Amino acid sequence: MSAANRYDVTEWPVGDPFDDVGEVMMSILADIKRRQSATDENDGGKPGAVIYIPPGDFRLRTQVVIDASFLRIEGSGHGFTSSSIRFNVPEDEWPDLHELWPGGSRILVDIPPERRAQRSDGAAFLVERQGSPRISSVEFSNFCIDGLHFTADGSDRHPENTYANGKTGIHVAGANDSFRVNGMGFVYLEHALTIHNADALSIHDNFVAECGSCIELRGWGQASKITDNLIGAGPSGYSIYAENHGGLLVTANNVFPRGASSVYFSGVTRSSITANRLHSFYPGMVVLDADSSENLVASNHLLRDHEPWTPFLGVDNGLDDGYGLVRISGNGNSVIGNHISEVVDSRSLRSAGTPPTIIRLVAGTGNYVATNHVVASDVSASSSGSAFEAQVDALLSTAVSNSLDVLTVVADPESTGNTILDSGTEAQIVADRRANAVRATPTIGAPSA
Amino acid sequence: MSAANRYDVTEWPVGDPFDDVGEVMMSILADIKRRQSATDENDGGKPGAVIYIPPGDFRLRTQVVIDASFLRIEGSGHGFTSSSIRFNVPEDEWPDLHELWPGGSRILVDIPPERRAQRSDGAAFLVERQGSPRISSVEFSNFCIDGLHFTADGSDRHPENTYANGKTGIHVAGANDSFRVNGMGFVYLEHALTIHNADALSIHDNFVAECGSCIELRGWGQASKITDNLIGAGPSGYSIYAENHGGLLVTANNVFPRGASSVYFSGVTRSSITANRLHSFYPGMVVLDADSSENLVASNHLLRDHEPWTPFLGVDNGLDDGYGLVRISGNGNSVIGNHISEVVDSRSLRSAGTPPTIIRLVAGTGNYVATNHVVASDVSASSSGSAFEAQVDALLSTAVSNSLDVLTVVADPESTGNTILDSGTEAQIVADRRANAVRATPTIGAPSA
Amino acid sequence: MSAANRYDVTEWPVGDPFDDVGEVMMSILADIKRRQSATDENDGGKPGAVIYIPPGDFRLRTQVVIDASFLRIEGSGHGFTSSSIRFNVPEDEWPDLHELWPGGSRILVDIPPERRAQRSDGAAFLVERQGSPRISSVEFSNFCIDGLHFTADGSDRHPENTYANGKTGIHVAGANDSFRVNGMGFVYLEHALTIHNADALSIHDNFVAECGSCIELRGWGQASKITDNLIGAGPSGYSIYAENHGGLLVTANNVFPRGASSVYFSGVTRSSITANRLHSFYPGMVVLDADSSENLVASNHLLRDHEPWTPFLGVDNGLDDGYGLVRISGNGNSVIGNHISEVVDSRSLRSAGTPPTIIRLVAGTGNYVATNHVVASDVSASSSGSAFEAQVDALLSTAVSNSLDVLTVVADPESTGNTILDSGTEAQIVADRRANAVRATPTIGAPSA
Repeated sequence: MSAANRYDVTEWPVGDPFDDVGEVMMSILADIKRRQSATDENDGGKPGAVIYIPPGDFRLRTQVVIDASFLRIEGSGHGFTSSSIRFNVPEDEWPDLHELWPGGSRILVDIPPERRAQRSDGAAFLVERQGSPRISSVEFSNFCIDGLHFTADGSDRHPENTYANGKTGIHVAGANDSFRVNGMGFVYLEHALTIHNADALSIHDNFVAECGSCIELRGWGQASKITDNLIGAGPSGYSIYAENHGGLLVTANNVFPRGASSVYFSGVTRSSITANRLHSFYPGMVVLDADSSENLVASNHLLRDHEPWTPFLGVDNGLDDGYGLVRISGNGNSVIGNHISEVVDSRSLRSAGTPPTIIRLVAGTGNYVATNHVVASDVSASSSGSAFEAQVDALLSTAVSNSLDVLTVVADPESTGNTILDSGTEAQIVADRRANAVRATPTIGAPSA
Repeated sequence: MSAANRYDVTEWPVGDPFDDVGEVMMSILADIKRRQSATDENDGGKPGAVIYIPPGDFRLRTQVVIDASFLRIEGSGHGFTSSSIRFNVPEDEWPDLHELWPGGSRILVDIPPERRAQRSDGAAFLVERQGSPRISSVEFSNFCIDGLHFTADGSDRHPENTYANGKTGIHVAGANDSFRVNGMGFVYLEHALTIHNADALSIHDNFVAECGSCIELRGWGQASKITDNLIGAGPSGYSIYAENHGGLLVTANNVFPRGASSVYFSGVTRSSITANRLHSFYPGMVVLDADSSENLVASNHLLRDHEPWTPFLGVDNGLDDGYGLVRISGNGNSVIGNHISEVVDSRSLRSAGTPPTIIRLVAGTGNYVATNHVVASDVSASSSGSAFEAQVDALLSTAVSNSLDVLTVVADPESTGNTILDSGTEAQIVADRRANAVRATPTIGAPSA
Repeated sequence: MSAANRYDVTEWPVGDPFDDVGEVMMSILADIKRRQSATDENDGGKPGAVIYIPPGDFRLRTQVVIDASFLRIEGSGHGFTSSSIRFNVPEDEWPDLHELWPGGSRILVDIPPERRAQRSDGAAFLVERQGSPRISSVEFSNFCIDGLHFTADGSDRHPENTYANGKTGIHVAGANDSFRVNGMGFVYLEHALTIHNADALSIHDNFVAECGSCIELRGWGQASKITDNLIGAGPSGYSIYAENHGGLLVTANNVFPRGASSVYFSGVTRSSITANRLHSFYPGMVVLDADSSENLVASNHLLRDHEPWTPFLGVDNGLDDGYGLVRISGNGNSVIGNHISEVVDSRSLRSAGTPPTIIRLVAGTGNYVATNHVVASDVSASSSGSAFEAQVDALLSTAVSNSLDVLTVVADPESTGNTILDSGTEAQIVADRRANAVRATPTIGAPSA
């Protein structure tokens, strides 16, 4: 039996994988379940299967609903290319382009709206199972899920720049264990990857970009990791979002713009955001919200600068510069050893009259903020019609001669009992010294302690 | 010749892979060595091979002994599911379960005891070679090694909860170079992965859980990495153990309970434990023992709370709460920028009358402990018959209102010349100020230095 | 069409893959481009392909020039073994060796010099494309590129110990997006991997050793990551080099000797070097040069000790011990929470009369150096004819009883406005206190601040 547990979507007799790979996969899944229906005896019985997607364009018109453990769907290429840049090239130049679309083992998500309505989430892949045990060890590996187009959202923006289309790449609806998402590419989806109630989930080494929101851990969960990914969401979406999770490890990710936030925790406890590189165009890069407590934010590099690309000028997440690049509402969190660069045009700041805020403690008690280094520069914003060159130019320009006044740490009256060490000068730290312990970063000429 | 260097265990003419995949693999190995026996000439000759295990249940009755370099054994699924939860479900409910066993490309380790005696370690895979050069580039990738059952150990515990069965997944007996263990699943083995004398070993992105001990680097070794794994050992075993290693990098792992320790170093020098998330139910989470020196423990999140699951109530590693969550015997180590949460029921503490100890310097000199943040809470321990829900509940409950008295850093008289900075209040640090340099974390109202 | 997008070099009708796999791959690439030449219509058209290299020895006499997106070249084994050790074994002992050469899916780079001249870089794989868009999603995965031999360089060294042969593994000549290099092995190449103008590049989990230089990011680029690799260059080469990059993440790497530097940044801004383990035999381990600014160097373990292996005694990178193990020329960088071990024989130091320098700020302003722990030991250098044992012995020997005088932080007059905290005693920090803010690490008996 086991020798037949490897399927290739292009070799399956039912359906046309180029026209509707979803139909093909549903037929394969039915075959797996039919063949592996034996009562579990003699230590075995339902080992699962692997479904292989070779490089190629595979349209998906039928949602793939997964309710079997030990299923691996794997391809041979994450296939990312920037659809965003292409859609902002005049169409009369398209015939000169080498290629127009993402590639690799590519799923073209094209579920008709009327079918999507049956599944409110519009996901290409929906994982859902009732009963016990929780579904385990479903793996998505090394293929590309492409939402094809964004659609008009009522704003002035070109439809392809809205990050909206009602499409989701992978949606896991219920409790799950030991899932793996590795080496995948996601592009032009409103939601790339949404997973509810995860235990020991691994999201590793993926490319998730040009999606409205990228990674969303919903419901609740524990002991998972989001590691070593390249991630970038849309201006009103999440790059990494988690709610009600404990023991989540977010490390070694390179999170680039846009993204309303780089990492957003809601009610998350005893989790880590460490050794990431985070880049955003707006305030609210890292938010610990809704009583997120006892988390560690350490050894990260945070850069906030300005949107350099013409098609998105004027677009942002709507937040005031007093909101905080790092914003914390909760207890006992640690913010240690981060580097934070704020590179903005002071004329475009939203915080009328007050300096922008870097780390803001909004509510809670007992947070510990130590040895963070903030570098703030006032630059003249420039923009360009070329996304890549503009971004690199902006990244490489260091204008330290025009330093910018910022508040490095602000503790609101509702946040007390915090400890703030070596994270800004006396003047840069706004905190009631009777309610918080503060040791300002030494300045030149001050006595060495 | 090379075109034939790819083998599938289900296509090999010798043996029955479903009844004894070990016999099949030994036959394949003999074929590889027979075919690649040419004297090395003209820059080539023994490139090795890949042995593929498709998804399926493959019983292993014969130990696989590997003595050839450049061998990759690969499957298509790590196949983890929780056998521990299943074995604690009443058997009359089993017919209602979707599946009972791990899956993926699954090796069922079933070497008869009489054969195991020939190989004292009882390993499914034994790597062993004499002579020069050291064996190189053996890779284990993307399959599942399942020990099937634990066995009675004389305690009151149900046999399936003992973490004991004399079985090992992979045992590397001698000096080796550039090995790789990636994407594997290990479950219900007394020892998952034991490697002696490793050089430039990579253990990356594996799922190693419900094993007595998980990763053990024995003998001595150098320049290896244990990165980005999900790991959890049994109450008397090691999650990560290393002895006499130099330049070991342990980073980006999510280590969950139980495990007598999360990371245990014995005689390890100039190595790193950084950016991990560590969770344990007992003292002794991170131990640097036997003159472990000049190591870095930084940017980790450590959580110690209590066992929430009914079948394991009362089980622990036997250590007193004065032992230290982090315990160091050695010189010149650095403990910098860690967050440590201790969440215990003070009524269940083992340290009669004295507060629990977080970081304990037992012996040695010149250790540097800086900017660590300890949050300690006194909670009423609760338990549940459901492992997952109980754990998530425990993780998410933050009870900061009941803070717990702890000693954040204790330097024993045998440990001197240490530097302790911003890692606890004056009262929380027990260290002879004439023998150690101490700067307590500033408190509210103290003058800003 | 898509079903045919998977190629095996041993099954292609044109050429002999064992004699010249380059010719075979060029023929396959022509086929891919011929078949995928359709005008992009209906959301698709050029998905790319995967070219598979099974385990085996494949000589490459013809350079592979890649100008198509979405191409994955993949093998089944990184195949590293130490050619350096083997070449330093007397040849009359070779017949007793188990194997002489690297293996796995192995490319033997053997382009004749006259053909190399046509491509000045001598690369086995050259990626180059003009026009728009940038080439995307080319992936190299799980095979071995072996340069076979080093050649005489005019020095006294044995030709096989020169790290020079004019060969490059992979050379990317122009702007590219979302490339991936995963699981590869590189050995005995003068340049392993050189990539120009990278955007969102991922170099992950590779084995790059015994190459002149290992990873070089040239030109300019952004938002890339070098993560979780094992790396070691030659004494005059780079282990990791980047120029004019922004937002580069270098994390979780284990970089071993030799390497003139472990990480060298030239004009790199807002990038991260975090949670790595770095080991070198010479000064200049981490260099931020040419106005590299606003970078974060945090939670790394740095070890500098001495060359233990007889064939390389007396070889070094030529730098004086006053050069600095970490050397910074730029503004607003952060060096936080690193452990640095310096283990040298004081009799062999090059800094006549002055103690060796650990962190040196050469030029710039506003750098922040906090909570770094330096341990320096004076040992009697010993050497051995056995590379592995000598290295392990050296790594494991801790000789704290003979502490060595070092300057932990030196700020040159050209570097001002820096903040130096808890990174050495008053005497160990050489910096104009009127131009820099200094708080020395507290010493025993000093009042607690």
